[in-house]
Amino acid sequence: MTRPSACVILFLFLFNITNTKAEDGYRLWLRYDKVKSTALYNGYRQSVKQIVFTGSSATAQAAKKELLDGLQQILNLQPAQVSNITANGTLIIGTPKSSKVIATYSQELHESGDEGYFLKSATIAGKSCLLIGGNTDKGILYGVFNFLRLLQTGQSLQQVSINESPKIKYRLLNHWDNLDRTVERGYAGSSIWKWHKLPGYIDPRYLDYARANASIGINGAVVNNVNASAVSLTKDYLIKATALANVFRTYGMKIYLTARFSAPIEIGGLKTADPLDAGVQKWWKDKADEIYTYIPDFGGFIVKANSEGQPGPQTYNRNHVDGANMLADALKPHNGIVMWRAFVYDDKVPDDRAKQAYNEFKPLDGQFRSNVIVQVKNGAIDFQPREPFHPLFGAMRKTPLMMEYQVTQEYLGFSTHLVYLAPLFKECLESDTYAKGKGSTVAKVIEGKVDNHALTGMAGVANIGSDVNWTGHPFAQANWYAFGRLAWNPALSSDAIADEWLRMTFSNDNTFIAPVKRLMLSSRETAVDYMTPLGLHHIMGTGAHYGPGPWVSDLSRPDWNPVYYHKADSAGVGFDRTSKGSNAVGQYFPEVREQFENIQTTPEKYMLWFHHVSWNYPMPSGRTLWQDLVHHYYRGVDSVRSMQKTWSLMQGKIDNSRFNEVKQLLAIQEQEAVFWRDACVLYFQSFSKQPIPAGYEKPEHDLAYYRNKKYFFLPGTGGVQ
Amino acid sequence: MTRPSACVILFLFLFNITNTKAEDGYRLWLRYDKVKSTALYNGYRQSVKQIVFTGSSATAQAAKKELLDGLQQILNLQPAQVSNITANGTLIIGTPKSSKVIATYSQELHESGDEGYFLKSATIAGKSCLLIGGNTDKGILYGVFNFLRLLQTGQSLQQVSINESPKIKYRLLNHWDNLDRTVERGYAGSSIWKWHKLPGYIDPRYLDYARANASIGINGAVVNNVNASAVSLTKDYLIKATALANVFRTYGMKIYLTARFSAPIEIGGLKTADPLDAGVQKWWKDKADEIYTYIPDFGGFIVKANSEGQPGPQTYNRNHVDGANMLADALKPHNGIVMWRAFVYDDKVPDDRAKQAYNEFKPLDGQFRSNVIVQVKNGAIDFQPREPFHPLFGAMRKTPLMMEYQVTQEYLGFSTHLVYLAPLFKECLESDTYAKGKGSTVAKVIEGKVDNHALTGMAGVANIGSDVNWTGHPFAQANWYAFGRLAWNPALSSDAIADEWLRMTFSNDNTFIAPVKRLMLSSRETAVDYMTPLGLHHIMGTGAHYGPGPWVSDLSRPDWNPVYYHKADSAGVGFDRTSKGSNAVGQYFPEVREQFENIQTTPEKYMLWFHHVSWNYPMPSGRTLWQDLVHHYYRGVDSVRSMQKTWSLMQGKIDNSRFNEVKQLLAIQEQEAVFWRDACVLYFQSFSKQPIPAGYEKPEHDLAYYRNKKYFFLPGTGGVQ
Repeated sequence: MTRPSACVILFLFLFNITNTKAEDGYRLWLRYDKVKSTALYNGYRQSVKQIVFTGSSATAQAAKKELLDGLQQILNLQPAQVSNITANGTLIIGTPKSSKVIATYSQELHESGDEGYFLKSATIAGKSCLLIGGNTDKGILYGVFNFLRLLQTGQSLQQVSINESPKIKYRLLNHWDNLDRTVERGYAGSSIWKWHKLPGYIDPRYLDYARANASIGINGAVVNNVNASAVSLTKDYLIKATALANVFRTYGMKIYLTARFSAPIEIGGLKTADPLDAGVQKWWKDKADEIYTYIPDFGGFIVKANSEGQPGPQTYNRNHVDGANMLADALKPHNGIVMWRAFVYDDKVPDDRAKQAYNEFKPLDGQFRSNVIVQVKNGAIDFQPREPFHPLFGAMRKTPLMMEYQVTQEYLGFSTHLVYLAPLFKECLESDTYAKGKGSTVAKVIEGKVDNHALTGMAGVANIGSDVNWTGHPFAQANWYAFGRLAWNPALSSDAIADEWLRMTFSNDNTFIAPVKRLMLSSRETAVDYMTPLGLHHIMGTGAHYGPGPWVSDLSRPDWNPVYYHKADSAGVGFDRTSKGSNAVGQYFPEVREQFENIQTTPEKYMLWFHHVSWNYPMPSGRTLWQDLVHHYYRGVDSVRSMQKTWSLMQGKIDNSRFNEVKQLLAIQEQEAVFWRDACVLYFQSFSKQPIPAGYEKPEHDLAYYRNKKYFFLPGTGGVQ
Repeated sequence: MTRPSACVILFLFLFNITNTKAEDGYRLWLRYDKVKSTALYNGYRQSVKQIVFTGSSATAQAAKKELLDGLQQILNLQPAQVSNITANGTLIIGTPKSSKVIATYSQELHESGDEGYFLKSATIAGKSCLLIGGNTDKGILYGVFNFLRLLQTGQSLQQVSINESPKIKYRLLNHWDNLDRTVERGYAGSSIWKWHKLPGYIDPRYLDYARANASIGINGAVVNNVNASAVSLTKDYLIKATALANVFRTYGMKIYLTARFSAPIEIGGLKTADPLDAGVQKWWKDKADEIYTYIPDFGGFIVKANSEGQPGPQTYNRNHVDGANMLADALKPHNGIVMWRAFVYDDKVPDDRAKQAYNEFKPLDGQFRSNVIVQVKNGAIDFQPREPFHPLFGAMRKTPLMMEYQVTQEYLGFSTHLVYLAPLFKECLESDTYAKGKGSTVAKVIEGKVDNHALTGMAGVANIGSDVNWTGHPFAQANWYAFGRLAWNPALSSDAIADEWLRMTFSNDNTFIAPVKRLMLSSRETAVDYMTPLGLHHIMGTGAHYGPGPWVSDLSRPDWNPVYYHKADSAGVGFDRTSKGSNAVGQYFPEVREQFENIQTTPEKYMLWFHHVSWNYPMPSGRTLWQDLVHHYYRGVDSVRSMQKTWSLMQGKIDNSRFNEVKQLLAIQEQEAVFWRDACVLYFQSFSKQPIPAGYEKPEHDLAYYRNKKYFFLPGTGGVQ
């Protein structure tokens, strides 16, 4: 440690730091590297000899610029811009309004809807052409990004026939960014929104942010924290937000704001925020009118009410419907929506916190205005490494529900653990609610297909910050990417998304893609293994949610303590949520309920979520529960070590800069996985009273060491890290 | 505002945002652009055909890498690396130990000292050579950066003869960075130190930070805030700091930490932090020993004691000497130093805050240990746009004093105002203290020349943050640069520094350099004009120090209020610090004292600092004081507008990206300058009761508007902006 010179020399050269910037991750998946394969390169150049680009809006111009920049960089190509099909290799881009050729593709246009596009090869007047058509310039923009993705991922343009439209209407990032630029649960630096310098200074990064979102179909962003400040609704801040909205608009994104329920008091000078008070209603109506004078396409409000100390209608003995509908009425004339969060966590301690949202919201079904959508987290607790799907999905038949995922890794290793979240997202989407019989998956519910809701949405709590590479961990970019792609089309596979992301972000080299994709696809299960296997949940250190804290039992509210969630005792471990316990299973439809009620039919991965299980319970593996629990924790660490081995073989296949960054982060992940494993195994051993089976490496320290380990200034809890 | 499309299109193209990153400012002044002049390009290439590089330490290797990278980029040159002078155009680099050729230059080596170097052309064995020699590899590194600077700024290598050594020994940045990554008085994002990810993850930015500092001779950094947390001294954080130290070391930088005086209680478990307590002394000794096991070249501690709520020896009825010497004794065996800050601001309200530091420290002269240096701000109040030099300079004959400048623009427009600070730094350095008769300038005092002190230092409170361009405002990079250059050599002119910085950072085009350099050189006077002309000071909004707040009078302590500093009344304005007033002038040596005692001989720029002056006082301009005050405020705004005009003519001469960024920031500066002007003129008018003279534009609002203007979430006060 005290003789670093050789290290530093090595470091200097490993990092290949030149005086121009190394590959720093800023460009995300829009790197547009030159195509390496000569065959593809030549083929592509033949396909795009000239361009007929029609359309003149800001969005159309942005699409054109993106296309030309992409072709220049990917193919070193500056195609002629022409107005007619005069040769083979003509790329025609436009809407039925702007292009007669495009207008003839009525079926494809019908399929494209408001935001979609078609992208196909065709022979027109004897000339081989490519077409990118859509009904709107936004569709065109999305089509251009898809076209560039084909080039980036080395796909053939021969016989291409793509017709895409989003399955979900509102595809939004939720930034938990405070106005002082700290980010709640942010692990990638400070907020990218430089409020103090707005509206005068427009950081070019805002544009790159909007571009990146457009490239994956994200069409809106809530730019401030759901734990809200009313200041965001003052005139000065609305003018600042307007500057952001103006950048977003070009890329088909709308801006949304959080509405602090008590804003009429805090910035309006009223005595109450009672949603049934006429003065309060007028204040919100006036405020909405004011916002739309600045931002004519303002998207709407999101509200976290009566949860974790936030004000809300219950403060005035009103209910969620009263609150949401008041705001909905204010926004309705302007076509804005209200996203009312179902994550409630109020002053009263419920018998089972997992049941609370359902209990509060289910009875309100059918009472919300048509421009209200209830935003429900994927699981009933809080963004755990693994949760069964939220019982509200499918349960509110007359109310559109919006999915809320957490892209930022609050409970999944911050920005030092490589955890690819698409499998987590997919696991929930593919869960069958049985709301209208078999096949009523969560995906179908949020696509509005189960009960024909027109208002559909998916929100992702952003993992974006001011770090040069946006997300802290280079692989965390994949989670932003996967969220956007799944919001566009929940049917996409984790594998396909990882594949295209890797190709665009790193390399088309299959000796890189194959192993690293495997690494990504197993990474979430790995994290579950070393953190919360077999249905364990919320046993992280409290507050920051960093590292293990299964022993925490001294917080004033029972449901703040990890011991509340795992209920380990000498008999066993796990939360009995069957009909003999909290009966949380009763919130599911019968088919699901019965599955979870019975330990034999409960999937192993949810076992301790629903059952209190004896340490000696015989698991399907042939091991006892205790042995299996230990097995999972050790397997988790082994898997991280295996990730390290895989990654070390990638040296030279990608740039040294990101190679080394990931290598260092994997080493941190390994250390922290070992810490998780040893702490949890030793802790649960204090109940099971059974030895760690032979063959496993011994924990380095005793339990007291792990319990007493102190951390300071953990990120995401106010300050920025 | 509601029809932004055209704007955004324009914006898209103005910014020239391509999918590769635009010129983002990350590279600072180390851009190493290819030489444009063919004559220079060819000439340089003739001069460096081959290299004899001797030396193998990490620092030598870093110097070599820098040189090769620089030559590659500036001259597209990969010179042969040889071991003998076999041809014309040989560049020989080394120390007398590593190179026999270098060893023959004994006079130059003598002049070079421990950190310096010589760089000269010579004919050796009939071959034309260039030599970069020094006694240490650090000297070589500095010499290489100077060599590259010659190429970057287009200077001739013919007959070059440079022999440089720093005039000041400790050339340090002080980061007021908190461990949660917020930055006190930081306006460029969050702290660049990612403590949570240390020591496992080494951000490549740490290396670029160290490179940039080495390029201007900065040889150390205090990485945490003087308002300190004891946590930085815990084992975990020392290991994190070690990782930074290991990066710094290669580039000749040492790491320093702030020592929270109460750390023995907070992390040591002691009952007291009394510096005369044996247990406390032992705790610090053990802590120092521990630090040096991790960081064998640890630089030492800086302490802010008994000031603004910080703990200190006075808490135990001891004095600054007791506190400083205890720490000095702990560090002494390891050659560490204590920098004890003279900025004291305690619980008692002094009759004149400007006098406090002198009153507390002057009596302690001669009592500090030999490894203590007292760090004194340039002026007696607090980093104002203009202050007379601190009366402690020259007053403590037996104590080495270290200069503390503020590079971050706490009182000078944050990171939205273009204010080049070299003239501010120089104004202080060139002030004559008369400590040992005429010519005893502040520069000579801190160079140790007045009283032969070996311990010499200059600290700059850093303006560095996580913004991609490091400093928020592209021109704020110049202040980091200027600080470093002046710490190396206080005799350098503001003009020369601006010239080389502009050439390296933007362009060698003289049609750019000449006007922009003029703009830089007048920019500080411009800020003084629109903020605090004629010796006004500390009339900023309280807390954040953003914008004007001359009216603030309701804070509980008199010396927290701007009215305390300007003392405007119906008779006049200004703080009487003559013998008839607070007698702060009495702290200066007689020659200076007499000058400031008499309003006739007091420089106009300090008039209201030292005198309470009648509104109708006849100024040398022929105007009354009131008229002159108004004149200055309006001139300040006019100058900003003139800066805008100058800058607008620079379009096309540099990259669009930075051109537009500065353009936007100048527009913000203009708005804020107008706000300052109107608020101050209207406020002081409420005392002078005289009209704004004819010909000046009228303020847009009344005084109440400016007084009532509310700001939220201002940067630098805890959160990050």
